[in-house]
Amino acid sequence: MSTPFRLGIAGLGTVGAGVVKIVQAHGDMLASKAGRPVEIAAVSAMNRGRNRGVDLAGYAWEDDVTRLAHRADVDCVVEVIGGSDGPARALVSQALAHGKHVVTANKALMARHGNELADAAEKAGVALSFEAAVAGGIPVIKAVGEGLAANRLSRVYGVMNGTCNFILSEMEKRKADYGDVLTEAQRLGYAETDPSFDVGGIDAAHKLAVLAALAFGTRVDFDGVVTEGIERVTLADIETARDMGYSIKLLAVARMHETGLEQRVRPCMVAETTEIGALKGVTNAVVAEGDFVGKCVFSGPGAGQGPTASAIIADVIDAARSIVRPAFGRPAAGLVAAPRLQHGDEHSPYYLRFMLADRPGALAQIAAALGAEGVSIHRMRQYGQGDPVPVVIETHDAPRDAIDAAVAAIAALPVSMIAPVAIRIEEV
Amino acid sequence: MSTPFRLGIAGLGTVGAGVVKIVQAHGDMLASKAGRPVEIAAVSAMNRGRNRGVDLAGYAWEDDVTRLAHRADVDCVVEVIGGSDGPARALVSQALAHGKHVVTANKALMARHGNELADAAEKAGVALSFEAAVAGGIPVIKAVGEGLAANRLSRVYGVMNGTCNFILSEMEKRKADYGDVLTEAQRLGYAETDPSFDVGGIDAAHKLAVLAALAFGTRVDFDGVVTEGIERVTLADIETARDMGYSIKLLAVARMHETGLEQRVRPCMVAETTEIGALKGVTNAVVAEGDFVGKCVFSGPGAGQGPTASAIIADVIDAARSIVRPAFGRPAAGLVAAPRLQHGDEHSPYYLRFMLADRPGALAQIAAALGAEGVSIHRMRQYGQGDPVPVVIETHDAPRDAIDAAVAAIAALPVSMIAPVAIRIEEV
Repeated sequence: MSTPFRLGIAGLGTVGAGVVKIVQAHGDMLASKAGRPVEIAAVSAMNRGRNRGVDLAGYAWEDDVTRLAHRADVDCVVEVIGGSDGPARALVSQALAHGKHVVTANKALMARHGNELADAAEKAGVALSFEAAVAGGIPVIKAVGEGLAANRLSRVYGVMNGTCNFILSEMEKRKADYGDVLTEAQRLGYAETDPSFDVGGIDAAHKLAVLAALAFGTRVDFDGVVTEGIERVTLADIETARDMGYSIKLLAVARMHETGLEQRVRPCMVAETTEIGALKGVTNAVVAEGDFVGKCVFSGPGAGQGPTASAIIADVIDAARSIVRPAFGRPAAGLVAAPRLQHGDEHSPYYLRFMLADRPGALAQIAAALGAEGVSIHRMRQYGQGDPVPVVIETHDAPRDAIDAAVAAIAALPVSMIAPVAIRIEEV
Repeated sequence: MSTPFRLGIAGLGTVGAGVVKIVQAHGDMLASKAGRPVEIAAVSAMNRGRNRGVDLAGYAWEDDVTRLAHRADVDCVVEVIGGSDGPARALVSQALAHGKHVVTANKALMARHGNELADAAEKAGVALSFEAAVAGGIPVIKAVGEGLAANRLSRVYGVMNGTCNFILSEMEKRKADYGDVLTEAQRLGYAETDPSFDVGGIDAAHKLAVLAALAFGTRVDFDGVVTEGIERVTLADIETARDMGYSIKLLAVARMHETGLEQRVRPCMVAETTEIGALKGVTNAVVAEGDFVGKCVFSGPGAGQGPTASAIIADVIDAARSIVRPAFGRPAAGLVAAPRLQHGDEHSPYYLRFMLADRPGALAQIAAALGAEGVSIHRMRQYGQGDPVPVVIETHDAPRDAIDAAVAAIAALPVSMIAPVAIRIEEV
């Protein structure tokens, strides 16, 4: 068992440098846990000259990242380049074809090409592991795929994007507007210069698609994720939510119904005293619900150098132990192409906010429009004396279609002064 | 890969019946995840006639549980008898000696004999797995041993006994005394008729000793766990704690210091807004802190038929895949016999409650006694106008020895009417 397990690291940004740091810092411990030494054979990145704060002198260098897939001295390719196509995809495909294990942090790649890559890994008899792709340092892939493997899971959900959670919780804490907090998040390095992948919900949707496949034994269906970002969440809604006992979170939810698989990333209201509702800052949390275990919650750092590299090395140790499972926990050929749930049928309570002209009968018109679609009111609050005056309604359970129809009808009323807001209330 | 993986189930109480239920309910899914069918070959329990709500007709029966270790048609023994010695220990030892994998939910067995059993499993080249022994259905053994394996862990801690957490949170919720809530917990089945293992902290200490060995690569040292139960926690202290922003929890904490391993199970105060502080009812939560990942929190059901059986089946699937790791993540021979921390050196803030005669100068005497031991006061509250009058002090960080000396000195003062209370405040 003393043959070393040799890594080829593709990408030397923050995460790649973190992987190097762990291998260098914890060599003895990793050897003890992996049953053999874990070594770095070769590395590759765009810019050879850049100072990354780690000593790379002992490792071979490849200018062409895909060459890592061909090196005889590499047992496992660690892919931390990113991007769903281009060099990352080429490298991973070639590595699998050449019988190398692959450990990747690339959620976009797995969300878009996970099915074909899982198939390729299985044919090659190697591991394709992606703990770092979902919820950073929290070992949720292992927990959902292995730890809870005895269960038929009904729902997996959570806060899977730290940037969005930071922005939403800062807005609440500082009573600040979205734009101001986004600027601060960019300054702190919590948001990219182009933040659209994060704030638009795409990043969370990638993670959700991958997690859902693992949880339900379905084929990855990223295009089936209904996605809405946090760009239109206002401070007013955050404060009203709080007043009603809720927090607004960008929630990624996958639920298996008899009629199909529901996958959505969308701002939702959740009770503020729950684990998800109480989550502050860049922390992530993932919840899994199973038929025998009940509900388990996993929370921790969802991004960053140390956490992401920690997840990668966990996968490396498993691969070094020659542990090869199907990428999504079950044979790729057996993964089910689940029908997509018709989202209009989703039942849920909703939070609705209307800005009404301060005029007698205005409220009656709102109530009538809701009643006409069969939407019943759980509680209602009217705030202040302004004109227009904000009126907030929490509905009972109603189908999304009925909510949409009622909101459209109300938006068209002369008393509705500003476009209404509808936010789903999620039971967590 | 279609050779079935055959279980011998030892013990058919709640948990054993749960294991049978999962195998019967999810046969196809388990086969898909394990890569081969998972079957029950034989079962054993004390009383063959008892109705357990599951159909056992297809399985061989053994009156003598240790016979499961000798059956050629058993690949893996599932031990859910319980007890640190007696038949459980005999069975597990014999099963390992006969080259059978062992999956156990037995924390007492692992806490007292884990070192020798890990050694035996390694010599036999089989798995000895115990996910179900710590925190029930929450996959913390997998998370700490595998998911966070890249990290040098500094502290693992949490609420690992649901009975105690139920009692403490019910006392707070209902403003009820310990005895009343214990009676109710017994009625609900959350506490045993003889509750001493749970309320005395022994059960949590078993779990902590096992988890610490896995986290730190140390030999299991159950006798090194300093243990104090919840029997002396009063409603008065719970209410005062709450008033100061704390919850009282039975906290199991293992921390690696340069000078030794600290292991303790003791009622502590924790900030009520933290994951641990907010934990209600029978739920468990385990926190792990590592040098690269930071802090991860795992919470969920810590006991019960479904959750415990779920954890057992997760181990069974790994064993069916022929995944054999050292029981404590590192070779048994390399586990370190860490020195025990001298607990008097532990630094922490403390909550102190004194019942003082309502007499001029009483407070000055308390302050002087604390000052004499170098204990400084962070904040102080005096409640009501009674005689004796409760005075509560939160200290700054102080060594346990200094707190003990100051409390002893104060207890001896004529103004101190009732024995003082000292509860550690834990940063979580």
